Formats: sequence, C-alpha cells, structure tokens
Amino acid sequence: MRIELPKDEMPRQWYNIIPDLPSPPAPPIHPGRMEPCTPDDLVDVFPMSLIEQDVSDKPWIDIPEPILDLYAQWRPTPLYRAVRWEQALGTPAKIYYKWEGVSPAGSHKPNTAVAQAYYNKQAGMKRIATETGAGQWGSALSYGCAMFGLGCTVYMVGVSYDQKPYRRLMMETWGATCYRSPNQRTQIGKRLLAERPDHPGSLGIAISEALEDAVPDPECRYSLGSVLNHVLLHQTINGLECKKQLAMVGDEPDVIIGCIGGGSNYAGHCFPFVPDKAAGKDIRFIAVEPQSCPSTTKGPYRYDFGDTAQTTPLLKMHTLGHDFVPPGIHAGGLRYHGMAPLVSQLIKEGIMESVAVPQTKCFESAVGFARAEGWIVAPETAHAVYVTEQEALKAKEEGVERVIMFNNSGHGYFDLAAYEAFLSGKLADYEYPVEEVQRALSVLPEVPEQ
Amino acid sequence: MRIELPKDEMPRQWYNIIPDLPSPPAPPIHPGRMEPCTPDDLVDVFPMSLIEQDVSDKPWIDIPEPILDLYAQWRPTPLYRAVRWEQALGTPAKIYYKWEGVSPAGSHKPNTAVAQAYYNKQAGMKRIATETGAGQWGSALSYGCAMFGLGCTVYMVGVSYDQKPYRRLMMETWGATCYRSPNQRTQIGKRLLAERPDHPGSLGIAISEALEDAVPDPECRYSLGSVLNHVLLHQTINGLECKKQLAMVGDEPDVIIGCIGGGSNYAGHCFPFVPDKAAGKDIRFIAVEPQSCPSTTKGPYRYDFGDTAQTTPLLKMHTLGHDFVPPGIHAGGLRYHGMAPLVSQLIKEGIMESVAVPQTKCFESAVGFARAEGWIVAPETAHAVYVTEQEALKAKEEGVERVIMFNNSGHGYFDLAAYEAFLSGKLADYEYPVEEVQRALSVLPEVPEQ
Repeated sequence: MRIELPKDEMPRQWYNIIPDLPSPPAPPIHPGRMEPCTPDDLVDVFPMSLIEQDVSDKPWIDIPEPILDLYAQWRPTPLYRAVRWEQALGTPAKIYYKWEGVSPAGSHKPNTAVAQAYYNKQAGMKRIATETGAGQWGSALSYGCAMFGLGCTVYMVGVSYDQKPYRRLMMETWGATCYRSPNQRTQIGKRLLAERPDHPGSLGIAISEALEDAVPDPECRYSLGSVLNHVLLHQTINGLECKKQLAMVGDEPDVIIGCIGGGSNYAGHCFPFVPDKAAGKDIRFIAVEPQSCPSTTKGPYRYDFGDTAQTTPLLKMHTLGHDFVPPGIHAGGLRYHGMAPLVSQLIKEGIMESVAVPQTKCFESAVGFARAEGWIVAPETAHAVYVTEQEALKAKEEGVERVIMFNNSGHGYFDLAAYEAFLSGKLADYEYPVEEVQRALSVLPEVPEQ
Repeated sequence: MRIELPKDEMPRQWYNIIPDLPSPPAPPIHPGRMEPCTPDDLVDVFPMSLIEQDVSDKPWIDIPEPILDLYAQWRPTPLYRAVRWEQALGTPAKIYYKWEGVSPAGSHKPNTAVAQAYYNKQAGMKRIATETGAGQWGSALSYGCAMFGLGCTVYMVGVSYDQKPYRRLMMETWGATCYRSPNQRTQIGKRLLAERPDHPGSLGIAISEALEDAVPDPECRYSLGSVLNHVLLHQTINGLECKKQLAMVGDEPDVIIGCIGGGSNYAGHCFPFVPDKAAGKDIRFIAVEPQSCPSTTKGPYRYDFGDTAQTTPLLKMHTLGHDFVPPGIHAGGLRYHGMAPLVSQLIKEGIMESVAVPQTKCFESAVGFARAEGWIVAPETAHAVYVTEQEALKAKEEGVERVIMFNNSGHGYFDLAAYEAFLSGKLADYEYPVEEVQRALSVLPEVPEQ
C-alpha cells in the first residue's frame, strides 16, 4: 500500500538535530594543532555555507528554492505499508518502508548531492571533486553537478572501477569525469602506482586524491557523501516526509530501522523522530551494520581520522581505526571504518541501538521481500530488511501489533551479481576480523580531552 | 515539473480501441485452415478471458481489483513537464513525458504482466511460459507471476542470456526459471543444438520453445509481452492517466510520440487520445522505429506469422517477414519483424504516422535529456526522445508553443554499455538491410482475402 504525500506538503526545511542533543557534539580537531577546527581550517575544502550548517544551532534550516525544485523531480518519495510482506511473514506488526530508489541515481544520495552542488554553485565554484567506492555517491554527485552546470571529478576505488563499470558509465552519461584511483594525476597516486602499478585502491586513498585535486584549485571544492553533519542534515527530508505520511494513515512508529555505513541514510530517516523519544514516546532506533565492519558494536568511541591518509580533521566517532580494511562484502556502502559523529553520539548516549549482522541472512530476507513487495533492494538496504524481518517475527511471537518502519534506501539493479551469489549458494559470511581491528586501533592518534 | 495523479484518480477501466476503429480489425488466420481463428484454436495457448479481450467490442473493460491493488504499488506513474530540457533546447514547445521507469521491473511491461498473471491464476493455471529477448519482458512477467504465486518459465535468447546476465538475475530473484534458448528441454531446441551446439538463438526460436513447453501442460499457458490486442489493452492505463494529468495542468497534446517494437508501449500511451482526433482535434501521432528494423515504414501491410518458426496464427500487420533477422542494435526491444495489428491498422488508415531513425541520433538526444531531466532512459525509449527533440526544434523554428508528449517507457540502467559505446564514439548506425528484407518478404505465405 503506497502512501503518497501531496507535493505541496513536501517539507521546506531540513531538521538539524544538534540543538536537540543531550550534550553538544564533540568538535572536529585539527590534527596539526590538536585543537578544535575553525571554519578557516576548512574554507579551501568546503563552501562556507556547508561549514556553517555543520555547526548550526538552529533546529530548522530553510531549503533553498532551487533545491526544492530539484527534489520535486522525485520527492516526496512514497512510503509503503508492506501489506504483502506482512502476510508472507504472518506477523501482526505493521511494516512501513520509505522508498528512495525512485531518485535519478536510484538511492537517497541525491538528497545531499543536489544540495551540495547548489551551495558550491552559489559560492562561485566551477567544479567539485569527490571519491566513490562502488559508485553510488559518485553517480549521485554527477547528477547533482549536471543539474547546476558544474564540472564533477570523481576518484573511483580502482578495484570497483575495473569490476563495476556501470556506475562509472552513469557518471559519464551525466557529464562527469571519473578516474581510476590511485591515479597518475595526483602526487599520492603517483607514489602508490610507482610502488604497485596495478594498485587496487581504497576509499581512503581516493579521498586523499580528491582532496589533493580540489584544495589547490580556487574554483573547485571537495564533497563527501556521508558522515558529516551537513550531509546528515540534507537527508532529514526523508524522515520529515515519513512523519507526515504516517500521520496520513494515523500511525506512529514503535521501531525505526536502517543500515549504517557512514550513517547518513539512517540519520535522515530517523533523526526527525528523536525529539519524540526525548518527549517520552517509546521508540526504538535500530542501526544495522555488517558483521564484517562493525564500527559501532565493536569500535571504541574516540577521535580518529575520516580517511586512511590522515588528511581530514579528527572526528569523535565509533571507529575501527582509519587503517582498517574491511572484508569485501557486497554492501560496499557499509565498508567504512568510522561512523557519522552524530550517529555515534546517539549510540553512545543510549538513544540509539545498533546491531551487526551477517550478509547471507540479509540477502535471504531481501529475496523474500522482493517476492512479496516487488522491489529488489541494494545489498546495503538488505541489512535493514533483515533486521525488520527479525523484529516482525518477534512481534508475531509476542502477538503484538507493533509499527515497524525502515528506510528502503536504494535499488539493487547494479548488485544483481550479489543476488546470484546468494541464490546459487556461493555467498559466504565473513567473521569479525578481530586481529585486523586490533592492529588498526593500535595506531590511532592520541587526542587531548576537549 | 512532476504532475502526480492522486491515487484515487487512477483509472479503473482499460480503454479498448477496437469499437472506435474506422473499420473492424482483420481477424487472425489459422495457418492450417487458412480461415479466421476461433477461440477454440487458442484455448491451449491463452486463458479464455484474454482471448475474449482480444476480440471484445466493449469500449471499456473493468480492471479487476487484485490488478488495481498491484498497479497501486507504482501507479499512477508521474507525468513530467520537461521544463529543464525545454530550456536546454530553447524551444517554445511544452514537452511532457510519462515516466514508466518507476515500476518494479523498470518499464511499462508490468502493466500487462500483472494482468496476464492474474487471468492465468483465475483460469487455474500453476505456471506461465514465455520468451524474452534482452530480458525486459521476462523480468516483468517473473515479477507478475511472483505476485500471484505462479511459476514462471522463461526462454531467453541465447546470445542475450550469455552477454546480459542482469535481467536473468532479476527473473531468478523473483523466483522464475530462466533457460538459455535454444535448449535441450524442447524438440526444436534439441534439433537446433544438434545442428549447432553454440546456437545464439532468436526471438522466433524462443517463442517456439515457450509454446512447445506450455501447450501440452494443462496447468500452463503461454504469454506474450507485446503485439496482441489484449497486451495493448492493458497498457492503456498509461494514456488514460496522461489524459487526467494533462487536464490537471490545463493542457492538451498536439503531438504524441513513442517508440515501437511490438507496439504495446506506444499504443498504451496514445490510444486513449485517438477518439479525440476522430472527434476533430488536431493531434499528430508519431510512432518511432529503428532505421535498421523499419517494419512500418518499409514493410508491407499483409498477413504474416508472429514467429520465425511459423507456429502462431497469421496476423495482418506491417512486417519485414517472419524470417527477417534485424541487425544487432542496442534497442533489443525494437528488433521485431512485425508490428501490433492495431498499430499497423492505424498507420495504414493514416491516423498515425511513423518514422525510422538511426540509433546514434537517439543516444545523442538521450544524453542531452539525462543531463537536463536526470533520467537515463532505455535505448528503445531514446528513439522517442530523439523525435521529440526534433519536434521541439521544429516548434522553435516555427515559433509555435506546441504541446508535445512522449512515453518515457523505461530506464536504461541495464543498457549503460550502449551509452558507453556512444560516449566513446564507437556506436555505429546500420543501414536499412534492403536485401535481407526482400529475401524475408519473398517467403511470406499467401493468404486468401478475408
């Protein structure tokens, strides 16, 4: 059952959770000075408008008209009641899901991509540089840049560049330039390729290359697709729509579920409901991460770099160590060593739960979901589907008509090889790589208490 | 600009064009008796309810509730005013497009897939067999069958089965079984594989195999994804929605454009507007076919088989000959030797125009469309995009504010290799293969005047 929000009901402001947090967020630390960053530290990296959003204490931030116009190409996105899946599971629970797969890039990523492109355009930029793993973020930003006539330079992790050409082709169709990372165009790329000409790359290396490309160019800035406060802010349009859509059918959520890699899709989905919990409503927030990259369930909450090359400010977050290399699970978007500081803080403060799950169970649930609801979801999203199913079965056991909602953050059309691996019995699970995490955590920087 | 039809405004009947035609359609002919088919001739092939729809003289046919319920998962689909593309083209024309890419299978095909699955279920069937070329139809029917708990057996043209695994993987995710065609499971498949073990297959062969599989099994029927009257009927939900959506913004179409392979997507889009033209409104209907497979612009209007193996009834249509093998253009869905009899008749009677275009021009327009509107369309759909652009530029030349609408029938996420070929300058055009057509037309059956 599809619940459509009329277009004139689309939210016109983003929700900023910062003023509603029980304690102020820990500031980013400049790794040279070991003191909180000032806006000036970041001015060559991001436009000032985004730097300001990162630290804003206003609970609501107006969405500029040109962004609203673009959102309206695919937003409000539908909220579904999963009636057929409920029946298949035999659960008394009511399951709702928000469907972000209808965007031009097929996921929630364009919510921040068009916003970031807009603010860069406003700041007089001609181009944005970014990194991408499997290509979800790179394709979304390529779309966003095309909409505002900006150039877009994407450094794509080498192994994905070689094995998954389709996302790169989307970027190129939208007019972006996509380079295999590491690349001879950058100093760090040259160095790594000299050591190993067929270097497979990593997200950390690609970030470093994008920064090296962007920072010296006065008409170019860098962009990140998750983790940072302003990215999470832009995603809150999702949860704000869900609130209105649930109100249309007279329901309120008891459990809200989403997958976390950098944290932005789930933050956008659930943050607008956090004040309701603070106001006394009994809501469980369940963030789902992969067993093989369990940053919030196994990683300490402490300062770490956002990238492998140690070029970003230090962020206080759950982390497995910036040097940690996660196993090659199919949910590439969940293979990140850290976690958004705002999501980390909510978990630390006990407002949000998190759980780590194995990928085979996720695909099993995703196939059941596809056969009931029709949608073939991304491997990342499958993590949310699995835990939703578990919660629905628990409600069945308990005989409770619980309202469970999850963020169906994107389609899996470019991930069907993973479905094939599952369907043919070839998909394996990875154990939590405890020694690799211990090694990565042993080289974390010591940061003085702020 | 997105125009959303409220869900309670979704049409509850399909529009049947047959009673509105200037003359009755030519009947299908039984190739053995050379006389019009009776329903009994088809009863082992299709459920009776669909056979009756093929010849119904009722202008409106109620859509059963279970089909409406499934349609509501993704319908009404949005109609867009292409404001950004209009600006890019600098045209005074208003361009509208209907976006069918939001369905679970990513195209218009599920409109008939869920309907056919429903009627087969009602007729007590346990399974449906069908053929598919590049996989659009096979995946849509797999989805439809999953929704009604039916088995689904798909014979996929060998060369596509080998080269394009993703559509097959969608079918399997939805629980269907997909065989490479030709296949040892059928007599015709055995024969062909004995001649040539690596036989690449063809749509005609795959149809024959699906029929051979379905007909002897009392709990299985055959299904076709285009061409036949009942398929076109199910697609009219598209055009009926467009009428209401245009009324919401107070516009009426001057030109309606769509691509034609078997003819169903364009028929569904434009048939509901045909009575308006009969009533005196000045509407141009432009059907777009590939230059390399120009059935309506080069093929005669006469009786021919629907399949290569000459097993189907004879249909009166524009045809290049059932033995014609079209060049390997990227728009696999437009590589069919014939054309839906109802579309053929409208062209024959001068109600509809048709035009044949080269694929490189189509991709050029599709890239411009993607960079303006965001959507990356299927190669088939790109044919409609190109002719829409031509009409918009003509309106610019003439300085006329014309209303042009086209059917954006599906996304191109599985066709990005074709975009790469275009972007890298490697995409070629095929000339109209005149000698191959002459050969194929020389072996057509002679059918007595009906």
